[in-house]
Amino acid sequence: MTAQFDVVDLIRSKRSGRRLDDEQIDWLLDAYTRGSVADEQMSAMAMAIYFQGLDGPELSRWTAAMIASGERLDFSGLSRPTVDKHSTGGVGDKITLPLAPLVAACGAAVPQLSGRGLGHTGGTLDKMEAIPGWHADLSTGQMMRQLEEVGAVICAAGPGLAPADKKLYALRDVTGTVESVPLIASSIMSKKIAEGTSALVLDVKTGSGAFMKTESDARELAGRLVELGRAAGVTTTALLTRMDSPLGRAAGNGVEVAEAVEVLQGGGPADVVELTLALARRMVEAVGIDADPEQALRSGAAMDVWRRMVQAQGGDPDARLPVARHSQDVVATEAGTLTGIDAMDVGLAAWRLGAGRARKEDPVQAAAGVYLTAQIGDEVVAGQPLATLLTDTAEAIPRAEQALAGAFSIGAAGPRPGVLIDVL
Amino acid sequence: MTAQFDVVDLIRSKRSGRRLDDEQIDWLLDAYTRGSVADEQMSAMAMAIYFQGLDGPELSRWTAAMIASGERLDFSGLSRPTVDKHSTGGVGDKITLPLAPLVAACGAAVPQLSGRGLGHTGGTLDKMEAIPGWHADLSTGQMMRQLEEVGAVICAAGPGLAPADKKLYALRDVTGTVESVPLIASSIMSKKIAEGTSALVLDVKTGSGAFMKTESDARELAGRLVELGRAAGVTTTALLTRMDSPLGRAAGNGVEVAEAVEVLQGGGPADVVELTLALARRMVEAVGIDADPEQALRSGAAMDVWRRMVQAQGGDPDARLPVARHSQDVVATEAGTLTGIDAMDVGLAAWRLGAGRARKEDPVQAAAGVYLTAQIGDEVVAGQPLATLLTDTAEAIPRAEQALAGAFSIGAAGPRPGVLIDVL
Repeated sequence: MTAQFDVVDLIRSKRSGRRLDDEQIDWLLDAYTRGSVADEQMSAMAMAIYFQGLDGPELSRWTAAMIASGERLDFSGLSRPTVDKHSTGGVGDKITLPLAPLVAACGAAVPQLSGRGLGHTGGTLDKMEAIPGWHADLSTGQMMRQLEEVGAVICAAGPGLAPADKKLYALRDVTGTVESVPLIASSIMSKKIAEGTSALVLDVKTGSGAFMKTESDARELAGRLVELGRAAGVTTTALLTRMDSPLGRAAGNGVEVAEAVEVLQGGGPADVVELTLALARRMVEAVGIDADPEQALRSGAAMDVWRRMVQAQGGDPDARLPVARHSQDVVATEAGTLTGIDAMDVGLAAWRLGAGRARKEDPVQAAAGVYLTAQIGDEVVAGQPLATLLTDTAEAIPRAEQALAGAFSIGAAGPRPGVLIDVL
Repeated sequence: MTAQFDVVDLIRSKRSGRRLDDEQIDWLLDAYTRGSVADEQMSAMAMAIYFQGLDGPELSRWTAAMIASGERLDFSGLSRPTVDKHSTGGVGDKITLPLAPLVAACGAAVPQLSGRGLGHTGGTLDKMEAIPGWHADLSTGQMMRQLEEVGAVICAAGPGLAPADKKLYALRDVTGTVESVPLIASSIMSKKIAEGTSALVLDVKTGSGAFMKTESDARELAGRLVELGRAAGVTTTALLTRMDSPLGRAAGNGVEVAEAVEVLQGGGPADVVELTLALARRMVEAVGIDADPEQALRSGAAMDVWRRMVQAQGGDPDARLPVARHSQDVVATEAGTLTGIDAMDVGLAAWRLGAGRARKEDPVQAAAGVYLTAQIGDEVVAGQPLATLLTDTAEAIPRAEQALAGAFSIGAAGPRPGVLIDVL
């Protein structure tokens, strides 16, 4: 980190479509983290990258430089192999909750370092916090012990992992430079690689309710994520999955925990079960464990790990989840087959009901959300409930109803496509 | 200015190639000037504009919004029509000095509001300040009186003109977003239109020593400048001129004043005289004055206005200009015809000798610079002086010599092209 560059030269170079070399990337990210490259310079660079991209070696180095900005966890002392899952996010995506104990029940160690963040509902940590007593903050020592003894941990990522990414992500969020595939890929992978897992399975979502609206964008992102993981020595697989309608019936925080528990008890919506098992199979395969996740689910072994995982972090797996003070049904306006449920509309309704946050410092309501009482393929009659709105703030209900006004498509029946599109 | 927009939406919109509408542009530049849009957001927008451009109506509105951010001068009370010149800048460009009094001698009022700035040599004000006693700062009342009585004024532009441009230009300078034709055009024209002139002649330079290296870029800029001026009701003409070799023999501050005085006395280098007259003819034509600038130059009328203009601002037109403490000749290393003198090399040498500044707050040396003792087309012999280096800091001479090491091309004779390429 001795070379000195002129940041304006680097911006102009990338702007003109030239490559940044290793020394330039190392210098840039170090100088930005230290504050000697200013936000207005980094945002111009991010916009230049939006237009000109980063090639494979540039992206690898960019990611490595973000990892080098902070600490790196090391799970090599564990007796079990580690494997982690990352999803690009969608409405009703509670898969981490049943998946982590399921894969642990198969013999792997699953360190799911998660976040809160902005979104239609809370992040994985917000969902888990609906469980009375459960807490997200663990020391590295506590995390290691739980991984060894229980096999699964869902906890907060410490502030020491990839601080350059934290600073850059906050900047991109306010400067219209989020939607750059290489910057998205390096942001995801810098955190995941810094977490020290030996294998990673990615769930890259595409469709109207996903960040990547088109399959080609999602494929491009998946390809770059896999390339980055493999270049860093992490066994990496990506599943391309559909996100046009919500995953399962529940979108919120506590309601998603309840649905995850249903899955662990052998029930739950078919699409949630399908995706949980598809990811679990790839995860055990990635670490070379010869176990059948479906068997671990059916036998109750996954549920046992869930209970121990919740208890290890102060939670009571038998406690009643919070109940919303107000609820309101949304009913069908005509008869026919339910052919579509718009994920974005359901997400917006959940957000308006209080399940998500608009600003980092906002609280989320543990009980708020949308519960879908009808599913795609169901025959419905006019006046039949399609969804239940749940909230502690009654005045939020009319705007949530508005959000759902066009969410349900009723018409001639067609087969619902499976959730899994492809594996990379 | 009542509409409220989300700046991230506007950045993403421009990034995706969509137009900004009038209300969005007005809001953006007002919010940026007031500080509610942050520098890192405006630099991302500037980079998006670098890639996606601004169309004619967007550029007009952007320029109008920058003008609206500050005050606007009004010369309509003068008995003479006003006409102004702007050059995009080049090495040895002292044309404003003989031109302003020449056009005033023809009957127009010439308000040349100028700057200092960074560059190989000082700006027009720095050059004029080499004249003992001369000062650049005039109140608006003093400027008006001098325009009415003398006809020409070269003075500092007040801080009240287009403050949005000042802030945006400083940002672009540190974020690699200077080289955007619409942003360059709006920066130039917002200041010129705010100055309130009724006619404007632009000298857009192209070549190795110009900001616009290629003729096509220079033509594009010239076209957009003319379009903007005409849209704002200013009679606007642009000359496309060559800037591969320095203009005239002198590059510096005081040395350029001396060369301007030579021209006003009927002598001076042919290219400086040619360009001064070409611009003067367009300027008098633009305001409908039937006068012959060549006659005003030959008769001494322009020289009379120069003397009165200098005196009106405290300067002594008869005072001896500062003399450099040290000088050093650069000699020919071989015999032949001098076929080229690289403008950038001469500019760099002048800058190293102390004629220009690296930071806004640096002083410039009044006597420093390069004086070319040979001109393109001359037959030279080995050991013959080609240029004289002038400086108050002897230790600067070796690095200035290095800058000139490859500046002079000696070979077979070829005709030197004229300075004027085209008129738009």
